[in-house]
Amino acid sequence: MNATSEVRGNAGGPGATAALIFDVFGTLVDWRSGVAREAERVLGACGVAVDALAFADAWRAQYQPAMERIRGGGEPYRPLDVLHRANLDRVLDDLGLSGRVDEAARTDLNLAWHRLDAWPDVTAALHALRPRFRLAPCSNGNIALMVDLARRNDWNWDAVLGADVARDYKPKAVVYQASAAALGCEPGAVLMVAAHSDDLAFAAKAGLRTAHIARPDEKGPGRGESAPKIPVDFAAADLADLATKLGAART
Amino acid sequence: MNATSEVRGNAGGPGATAALIFDVFGTLVDWRSGVAREAERVLGACGVAVDALAFADAWRAQYQPAMERIRGGGEPYRPLDVLHRANLDRVLDDLGLSGRVDEAARTDLNLAWHRLDAWPDVTAALHALRPRFRLAPCSNGNIALMVDLARRNDWNWDAVLGADVARDYKPKAVVYQASAAALGCEPGAVLMVAAHSDDLAFAAKAGLRTAHIARPDEKGPGRGESAPKIPVDFAAADLADLATKLGAART
Repeated sequence: MNATSEVRGNAGGPGATAALIFDVFGTLVDWRSGVAREAERVLGACGVAVDALAFADAWRAQYQPAMERIRGGGEPYRPLDVLHRANLDRVLDDLGLSGRVDEAARTDLNLAWHRLDAWPDVTAALHALRPRFRLAPCSNGNIALMVDLARRNDWNWDAVLGADVARDYKPKAVVYQASAAALGCEPGAVLMVAAHSDDLAFAAKAGLRTAHIARPDEKGPGRGESAPKIPVDFAAADLADLATKLGAART
Repeated sequence: MNATSEVRGNAGGPGATAALIFDVFGTLVDWRSGVAREAERVLGACGVAVDALAFADAWRAQYQPAMERIRGGGEPYRPLDVLHRANLDRVLDDLGLSGRVDEAARTDLNLAWHRLDAWPDVTAALHALRPRFRLAPCSNGNIALMVDLARRNDWNWDAVLGADVARDYKPKAVVYQASAAALGCEPGAVLMVAAHSDDLAFAAKAGLRTAHIARPDEKGPGRGESAPKIPVDFAAADLADLATKLGAART
């Protein structure tokens, strides 16, 4: 854990929310249709036709197992770009496509995760929240990936936090706690925002407050969370609704 | 070093400058007059009269020795806020003021470094540079400190890099290289911007390009660098001049 916790900055004691930290894949960006779009483009140029949405799902299915090997201590920390690339190679193997997708195409396709679009409510809501709260992603994506998503979608963060700064993966407590410390906040002054109840459950266990954002279609129509499965401090229909609930909506 | 270097993002090969990273204390903010102002305010409220500029100089004089104990491996990494606080206690001891400045005042005064003002040319130049280049501080200041300086001075960074991300202190090569990697860049695609020739010399040795900013009055009138002491890629009168040299000046 980041030793910044030894000395707090001048933000937020335990009473007030001073910072919001965000899950990104699924909560702020639509990973499924974006990865499918990139797969169709890159694999199409290789003369390979695939069910692009199924390809996105297969690639994403390798996400948790790859991180779990690191979370468990069996492998040293490596950034998500590296895990995504190994997972891509595995998925291409599984589909019998190894010989048909060259190195340049794989490098290009791996950047699909850098080229995802925000859900329509996100960018304006982040701009509305920024004057009132410190804002940072707390994603398992590495910093370079977060930088590209922010530039693409016109987001301004106070800092880019998450796995790369903590050098471990959510939902380990160190990732949430190091993010709070890096913003100069007690955990209880930080609101973790996510569309996934498990992420929020672990954030709460680490001492943070929690806000759930409904993303009912994240993994395909009706295959996302339309409501939290656990008690949360805020349950919002989208990020604009959360901004309203926090009194930060634009008038 | 951050393992992001294993997989590059989609920014900048070795040919073009894709990112600028910045020294902060002295290069972007006037630490001496800001710390003096805060010392006068906080110590004055304790009924202690000091030569505020001499106090700022004495505090700053403890900066390199404290980092050197960590750079040398004798002590584990701790963020600059923690070093600043230990250094403050030492300076108060040296001045025979230990019994006259209580814990609350010390905590407040330690945040002097979070409350520094930018040199007058800086904020507009950063806004002009941002559309063309990825921008991040590469400072020995910790993330919470950088967040406060950015909010105070209206800066928008792509990420906050430097000591807290590398978990070591400049001028060790890992700090420059981890900052480039975190931005998805080869070191040669990153321009290190500083008012200190030694910082730039080590950045160049780590593979980065270099830009020197003149800050002739950083440490008092005439006690700063008005020109680089080493060969650099750019030597600029201020940050606006660098933006012009990079073709990013506002018209």
